[in-house]
Amino acid sequence: MTAPSIDAVRLLGRLRELGAIGRNGEGRLTRLAASDSERDGRNRLVSWLEAAGLEIAVDRIGNIFGIWAEDTADRPPLMLGSHIDTVINAGIYDGCYGVLAGLEVIETLKSSGFVPVRPIVVVAFTNEEGVRYTPDMMGSLVYAGGLDVETALATVGTDGSVLGDELRRIGYAGDREPGFLKPCAYMELHIEQGPVLEREGVAIGAVENLQGISWQKVSVEGDANHAGTTPISMRRDAGYAAARVITFLRDRAKASNTPTVATVGCMAFEPNAINVIPSRVTFTVDLRDPDEERLKQEEAALADFLKMLSGEEGVAISVERLARFEPVTFDAGIVAGIEAAARARGLSWRRMTSGAGHDAQMIARMAPAAMIFVPSKGGISHNPKEFTGDDELVAGANVLLDVVRKLVGGE
Amino acid sequence: MTAPSIDAVRLLGRLRELGAIGRNGEGRLTRLAASDSERDGRNRLVSWLEAAGLEIAVDRIGNIFGIWAEDTADRPPLMLGSHIDTVINAGIYDGCYGVLAGLEVIETLKSSGFVPVRPIVVVAFTNEEGVRYTPDMMGSLVYAGGLDVETALATVGTDGSVLGDELRRIGYAGDREPGFLKPCAYMELHIEQGPVLEREGVAIGAVENLQGISWQKVSVEGDANHAGTTPISMRRDAGYAAARVITFLRDRAKASNTPTVATVGCMAFEPNAINVIPSRVTFTVDLRDPDEERLKQEEAALADFLKMLSGEEGVAISVERLARFEPVTFDAGIVAGIEAAARARGLSWRRMTSGAGHDAQMIARMAPAAMIFVPSKGGISHNPKEFTGDDELVAGANVLLDVVRKLVGGE
Repeated sequence: MTAPSIDAVRLLGRLRELGAIGRNGEGRLTRLAASDSERDGRNRLVSWLEAAGLEIAVDRIGNIFGIWAEDTADRPPLMLGSHIDTVINAGIYDGCYGVLAGLEVIETLKSSGFVPVRPIVVVAFTNEEGVRYTPDMMGSLVYAGGLDVETALATVGTDGSVLGDELRRIGYAGDREPGFLKPCAYMELHIEQGPVLEREGVAIGAVENLQGISWQKVSVEGDANHAGTTPISMRRDAGYAAARVITFLRDRAKASNTPTVATVGCMAFEPNAINVIPSRVTFTVDLRDPDEERLKQEEAALADFLKMLSGEEGVAISVERLARFEPVTFDAGIVAGIEAAARARGLSWRRMTSGAGHDAQMIARMAPAAMIFVPSKGGISHNPKEFTGDDELVAGANVLLDVVRKLVGGE
Repeated sequence: MTAPSIDAVRLLGRLRELGAIGRNGEGRLTRLAASDSERDGRNRLVSWLEAAGLEIAVDRIGNIFGIWAEDTADRPPLMLGSHIDTVINAGIYDGCYGVLAGLEVIETLKSSGFVPVRPIVVVAFTNEEGVRYTPDMMGSLVYAGGLDVETALATVGTDGSVLGDELRRIGYAGDREPGFLKPCAYMELHIEQGPVLEREGVAIGAVENLQGISWQKVSVEGDANHAGTTPISMRRDAGYAAARVITFLRDRAKASNTPTVATVGCMAFEPNAINVIPSRVTFTVDLRDPDEERLKQEEAALADFLKMLSGEEGVAISVERLARFEPVTFDAGIVAGIEAAARARGLSWRRMTSGAGHDAQMIARMAPAAMIFVPSKGGISHNPKEFTGDDELVAGANVLLDVVRKLVGGE
């Protein structure tokens, strides 16, 4: 048979239709996990899964599965997916693209007469964004056994709600145990959420690993003296110490010739008065590296610098760990398959590292996994300006289709 | 006659009594300009001025005068003073010490039988702190002709009140025109509000000048990209640019061997999220120098640096001027008199620059002026921890007394 291609009109139409669900009066798109608007998005997804003839399953943490098993249900399935919850004031691609492309691949294979030798499952994981309930990537984390389902269901949200209550309320507290299907492999198609593919003019990212993440909160205590009357030599300036950390991190990242990235995203000065030397400054440090040893080295280098700085400026510095994830290495065989599929379609491709967290990193605990990235205009995501061109979206879905055909086996 | 000394018990007792007026249930002291609590402080001050046999006058901006004229009312008076309004959660010394020491000097001279050849006036200027109504040092600025009284009275406060209405309400909208007494000289005794005298173990500061002040607000616009997915080389990080400015100012001040001080006191990051590169950062720069040419050079050097930084990091930088005061040079003759008086009392002394703004800088527009500083423990002011020892307070008041005797002439 001729190699099929996905139905671009169907995929793009659904992406836009789902992207219309959860908009407020001003047109801002928000589908927080287990909210009314996310229920509407879930219902729409389920209607499409049913129309495609898939078996629907929902597990206790609210993950939705569309299963194409035929008479191979006893074999480990190939799983495709992502999530459909969003941040506040979101774009339409993040997560939804991976779920709808998974469905599109199944429908294309079904209608092409392909007979798989194992089930293919599309999944939408609960609460990937982590805006309403912490931690993020919760549904996939629970599914992979990294978090107890009872603990997760008891999570209290930023609005005081309890996740388990909300899942029941919206009709998505399922009865399947998380992990009930153990996949032979997991694939996730996603927009890059970074600028690399666009700037390099590359169509397909074969994502071979995912950065480790280290989040720390640093507090500096100095003296709140008068800006006019305190000579420079007598100052213990918490704001100056914070500035030194920012320039240290940049200088180190620039000099290192490694993929290490370091970001100071949050900053608060106290008393925050124009004529008072800052007495207390708190800021966050986000360190990422795909190599665990290097990430540890970066953390150690920062700790050494803070110690030196504390003595030099006469300030007290304390550090609180906010989050820490080890890097994830994706399956080399699947990554090679993505490269081969891109090449066969005449698409440019490159291996790359995911800088953001994804459900794939959680499922990688229980099965070989990998991701495919497509370009994000300007590297922008979590924002209404998030954009990937139609041709780029279709190209990514076709690469997924080809890899799935190879992985799943059949005729 | 023997040289008199001030009545330490009376001065210190009044300082504590005034410092007890305006405390809330938690003991925090706040007497904002023209508030109920400041009215209570004004009433107490006026009762002491009356008890001392002084003539009371209040001008249209609410400045209070206690006049000891005898039969010399046709001559330009010597004026002593400061203010009794406070910041929020204040100490008891800032301003009040200068007013009460002025009164103390007059009472001491009166009771010693001294007959002055010109009037001596003690003044409490309205709204020196500028917390409720902008600008600060308002009463002395209006008095010296630097701000129209009608404009000042129409000022709307942070609480929506109008200064003129509030002065009428508390009974301190006087009928004298600001500037009605043109002093032959003005002296202000004040706590240093800085650490220099304490650290050097010096009792008396003979304040020869007052720093020029340049306040600017700097806004940096970069790109809010994802902290994990955006390589360092592709970043336009507004927070990094702000950090570079802070370290530039410190490095320059340290290298210059001048009294220039530079402070970044306010800082705001947007979106202020741990995993987002700051897209917009605003911060303030407070530059001070007693030399106008050098202050201009510092402003120019900052402007050049911002231009360079804008190109280097690819960020847009804009600057808004918030305030600008030229340095003030105090009267060399009075400063020499302060030194001589300290020496004669066996007190250590040094010439110094005022880093903070004071009413004396406004009155210097209309008369020869100078200030006397006494040590501030830890350099702390505008804070309940503000502290100067009793002996230090008494020493400063006695130096003021001696200088006044010389300046005013008489027997």
